Amino acid sequence: MKIVVIGAGGDVGRPVADELGRDGKHEVIRVGRTRGDHQVDITRDDSVSALFEQIGPIDAIVAAAGNVILAPVEKMTAADFHRGLQDKLLSQVRVALIGQHYLSDGGSITLTSGIAVDDPIAQGSHAAASNAGIEGFVRAAACDFRRGIRINAVSPTMLLESMNRFGRFFPGYEGVPATRVAMAYRRSVEGVHSGRVYRVGH
Amino acid sequence: MKIVVIGAGGDVGRPVADELGRDGKHEVIRVGRTRGDHQVDITRDDSVSALFEQIGPIDAIVAAAGNVILAPVEKMTAADFHRGLQDKLLSQVRVALIGQHYLSDGGSITLTSGIAVDDPIAQGSHAAASNAGIEGFVRAAACDFRRGIRINAVSPTMLLESMNRFGRFFPGYEGVPATRVAMAYRRSVEGVHSGRVYRVGH
Ligand SMILES: NC(=O)c1ccc[n+]([C@@H]2O[C@H](COP(=O)([O-])OP(=O)(O)OC[C@H]3O[C@@H](n4cnc5c(N)ncnc54)[C@H](OP(=O)(O)O)[C@@H]3O)[C@@H](O)[C@H]2O)c1
Ligand SMILES: NC(=O)c1ccc[n+]([C@@H]2O[C@H](COP(=O)([O-])OP(=O)(O)OC[C@H]3O[C@@H](n4cnc5c(N)ncnc54)[C@H](OP(=O)(O)O)[C@@H]3O)[C@@H](O)[C@H]2O)c1
Repeated sequence: MKIVVIGAGGDVGRPVADELGRDGKHEVIRVGRTRGDHQVDITRDDSVSALFEQIGPIDAIVAAAGNVILAPVEKMTAADFHRGLQDKLLSQVRVALIGQHYLSDGGSITLTSGIAVDDPIAQGSHAAASNAGIEGFVRAAACDFRRGIRINAVSPTMLLESMNRFGRFFPGYEGVPATRVAMAYRRSVEGVHSGRVYRVGH
Repeated sequence: MKIVVIGAGGDVGRPVADELGRDGKHEVIRVGRTRGDHQVDITRDDSVSALFEQIGPIDAIVAAAGNVILAPVEKMTAADFHRGLQDKLLSQVRVALIGQHYLSDGGSITLTSGIAVDDPIAQGSHAAASNAGIEGFVRAAACDFRRGIRINAVSPTMLLESMNRFGRFFPGYEGVPATRVAMAYRRSVEGVHSGRVYRVGH
């Protein structure tokens, strides 16, 4: 398969690209905002369209990029919340909505949510909303796609590799090795499920 | 209690305002875009701030307004999806984020999602994302609010009263009487729960 991994330089995306490329079965195209084989800004339609035009027909899309906003609900403004929706929820949905047109029949899309929706954390009201939105989109889009296109999401807990960045927001969380998270993406890409949310390390 | 009901002229909001006003225990303020005791446009910060400034301190907020976009995922653009997020998810969250500052200690916020997230319908990928986003926000914000502020959501199935408008999108759905849906809002407003999603007629 020809697989596009967006966010392939990140804590989640790098091990996913490594896992999918490991046994030589797939051609993995690594995409980032500043690094990788191709660059894209998933907050912009024109940039995402240009990426897929350059790459041409593909069999699978993985999106592991898009930031949540962490802030106390009492201080959060609608403008903050809006910015967060743009960055995480809408940007991943944009990858799916534009990318679908470049997928072969039976191709797949795998998005990335996160534990903060099932297990709320302090300052996590935007994270929960964006992650839940991604999962809701995945569950319903799975029923609506034609041509055998599948769509799933992976919801990792905090990665062990990301503890320095996120540990203070997740007190008492064990964390999960990125290699285990990467397996869930392979399960989505090479499997037959659609509309699933794979929770890893919850 | 002094209760603001936004969307009080609608299929959901009208019976909610009637139910909460029925026994004379509460002062119910009916708000709509074009009708009611006050007008507001919940897609705009300045309009929502002006509403709460006019009304002053309150004990409960109900938001039963905000439209989803129904469209096949294969035809949907990121711009459509963005418009839908603005209208339903962000506008209800805006009511919560601005309105919280006018709530008395122990006050409550009740938002409105909808069945399409648990039970996907054709053309429902945006509806599912916005409704899931509202529910995710509610679950996490409930853990983050101080001053005893509570927040819940009501997720109705299609109302019997709305069958003419929505019946073709919900084949085989029985529908639920608006009066039953209204009870769930009373449960949220007068009860002690927070972070709950009340499903009615699912
Ligand atoms: N890390 C965790 O513990 C964890 C846990 C649960 C969920 N998640 C979710 O997983 C996703 C990835 O997180 P991460 O921790 O791996 O992030 P990260 O380490 O910060 O890496 C982000 C990756 O995304 C790319 N990127 C950033 N903004 C982009 C944009 N606008 N357009 C295109 N690419 C962009 C970056 O590209 P360049 O490096 O090339 O600039 C990089 O490859 C996020 O949605 C996050 O919420 C992470
Ligand atoms: N009806 C159903 O079967 C059903 C089922 C599940 C969930 N829901 C959800 O329940 C909510 C209400 O739906 P509904 O069917 O009751 O809607 P509706 O009958 O169309 O009524 C909408 C109400 O919201 C007000 N409104 C519309 N846009 C507004 C804005 N920008 N700012 C402030 N107020 C605005 C309208 O005000 P004016 O009339 O004064 O202009 C009216 O009071 C929606 O979020 C919907 O998704 C509905």
